[in-house]
Amino acid sequence: MSKYLNKRTSALTPYVPGEQPKDKKYIKLNTNESPYPPSIKALEAMRSAANDDLRLYPDPDCEELKQTIATSYDVGPQNVFVGNGSDEILAFAFQAFFEPGCKIRFPKITYSFYPVYAELYGIAFETIPLDEEFNIPVGKFFSSEGGVVIPNPNAPTSVALSINEIEKIVSENSEVVVIIDEAYVDFGAESAVSLISKYQNLLVVQTLSKSRSLAGLRVGFAIGSSELIEGLEKIKNSFNSYTLDRIALAGAVASIKDFEYNMTVQKKIIDTREWVVCELDKLGFKQTVSKANFLFVSPPDGDAKKLFERLRKEGVLTRYFANIPNWLRITVGTDAQMKEMLRVIERSC
Amino acid sequence: MSKYLNKRTSALTPYVPGEQPKDKKYIKLNTNESPYPPSIKALEAMRSAANDDLRLYPDPDCEELKQTIATSYDVGPQNVFVGNGSDEILAFAFQAFFEPGCKIRFPKITYSFYPVYAELYGIAFETIPLDEEFNIPVGKFFSSEGGVVIPNPNAPTSVALSINEIEKIVSENSEVVVIIDEAYVDFGAESAVSLISKYQNLLVVQTLSKSRSLAGLRVGFAIGSSELIEGLEKIKNSFNSYTLDRIALAGAVASIKDFEYNMTVQKKIIDTREWVVCELDKLGFKQTVSKANFLFVSPPDGDAKKLFERLRKEGVLTRYFANIPNWLRITVGTDAQMKEMLRVIERSC
Repeated sequence: MSKYLNKRTSALTPYVPGEQPKDKKYIKLNTNESPYPPSIKALEAMRSAANDDLRLYPDPDCEELKQTIATSYDVGPQNVFVGNGSDEILAFAFQAFFEPGCKIRFPKITYSFYPVYAELYGIAFETIPLDEEFNIPVGKFFSSEGGVVIPNPNAPTSVALSINEIEKIVSENSEVVVIIDEAYVDFGAESAVSLISKYQNLLVVQTLSKSRSLAGLRVGFAIGSSELIEGLEKIKNSFNSYTLDRIALAGAVASIKDFEYNMTVQKKIIDTREWVVCELDKLGFKQTVSKANFLFVSPPDGDAKKLFERLRKEGVLTRYFANIPNWLRITVGTDAQMKEMLRVIERSC
Repeated sequence: MSKYLNKRTSALTPYVPGEQPKDKKYIKLNTNESPYPPSIKALEAMRSAANDDLRLYPDPDCEELKQTIATSYDVGPQNVFVGNGSDEILAFAFQAFFEPGCKIRFPKITYSFYPVYAELYGIAFETIPLDEEFNIPVGKFFSSEGGVVIPNPNAPTSVALSINEIEKIVSENSEVVVIIDEAYVDFGAESAVSLISKYQNLLVVQTLSKSRSLAGLRVGFAIGSSELIEGLEKIKNSFNSYTLDRIALAGAVASIKDFEYNMTVQKKIIDTREWVVCELDKLGFKQTVSKANFLFVSPPDGDAKKLFERLRKEGVLTRYFANIPNWLRITVGTDAQMKEMLRVIERSC
């Protein structure tokens, strides 16, 4: 242990992201990236933003991007926060809204970054177990002492709550902040953005990484009451005045505006998902009802680790979580990629 | 005050960056940006990185960029950390190395983000007054309880310490971390990078914003012992796995490699600075000895605020700090911009 790290840092166990192999030989179904390219309009906007103006700082208030998101989601720009990926926004939200002494709640099986943020900011937390079918027990999230964080759909389970269930959790926690992490919402779940005018304590977080095919650009956004947005701005402006660079701002604006292209991609991914679900059903896999761009599946013999390794050996990367031993998370790729994955599975089962 | 913000966030007073006017009608000498464009090679690298691969996450370890910086500074890649601007790196460093209960030290007149970071992470601090000529009193930084932060050259004063003075401060604080913030070092000061192999407690922070004309791209880096770099990685990986996007990574690599172009720009800015120093001398201005891309000056009548307002009215933005009433910070622009500034000053004095 280094004598130069403070106590909290020494005790941290960082998040470990999925593999990013550098040789590109794999079919990458392990980090929930889109198999389709970003909007051409977004790429063009980025290329033309790579100009001499890069000598100047970006707009610290990101006004154009906020206005574009506001228009797209029918909210005011004062209801929008933007950041360097939704991970950064989640970190800011943990830091802004949760009081170290008051326990927050999130599901026991969920995005494994949440406990890391809690450790980073010294926030106490309790985890709520899912039921046997990986459903979130809504009532157990009522009256939290410190706040609530729920991804909808949940990850890595892919299961979604209905907007009525989300609303119950938000209304039964009126004294604390409820964060709904909608990283995967565009693949079939209902967004809680429509509730933000009714509930001051609701923060909805989204990203351009998945449904806009821009994981490589690092742009996320949050929508909530102006009160919550001001809290996030306060943290951001005490951390880094300019979290989004000029090229990312230009690309994000153009991507959000290219609604039609993104819808087409989202629909294609949903269609592929539904087809793969049928195929895996035929092969005897257990599956959750996915509303995301990934599947959460258990092979007939329950040996997900063996299948994970077999797929890897055959050039197909998926994600296996040691704490959920019988299950595997598989990103929905192109039809051709999924055919190859099914071929490997068929040969192994 | 919002009931949804925690106590620390409610009490924060964020940093306020210099104005970024959106109409572009000003000669911008207020935020220490380069008046020259970035390397053409960097722009080309960014344009070609705006491609379909943006659907994929960037390399979370930023290996190529770290290796490029390591080669350029003759250190190992394990001695390099990269981040979303040097502001983010400074924030991570405050969070990683300083213990809340132990007072850190920085100059009383300095980059005004330091006290903001300290508030954000609840770190106690004491500020050391400069002497009458804005010099940093080296001995007063020895044996700090919690750590030391010094910009070299200092901002907004532009005054630099020698490498021997920096080494004294580092060696007289062997139990705590000393951060040397070298945002402006390439304009004539001596870098402390050569000391990192000798001192485990030294972290040198630099940026591509100033001397590489890339303020709009948000890339900074730190060089230090592998022990300190590991501490920064721990914080970063508990905050956001991917702080640098694919385009920023590509642009930064190409910019660092285009050493010759950046040197030419730096030399040009230094030449302009020395010429303006002579002109302001003739006009009776008091000035510090600038080793930065900005000047710190006091007009003959001492009324810096009046001069700031006059310049602004005439279309020249500079930066005035209410806590240093007789002095004005002026970024070194192109020769033509400085001529225009001098013209306004001559007419007002």
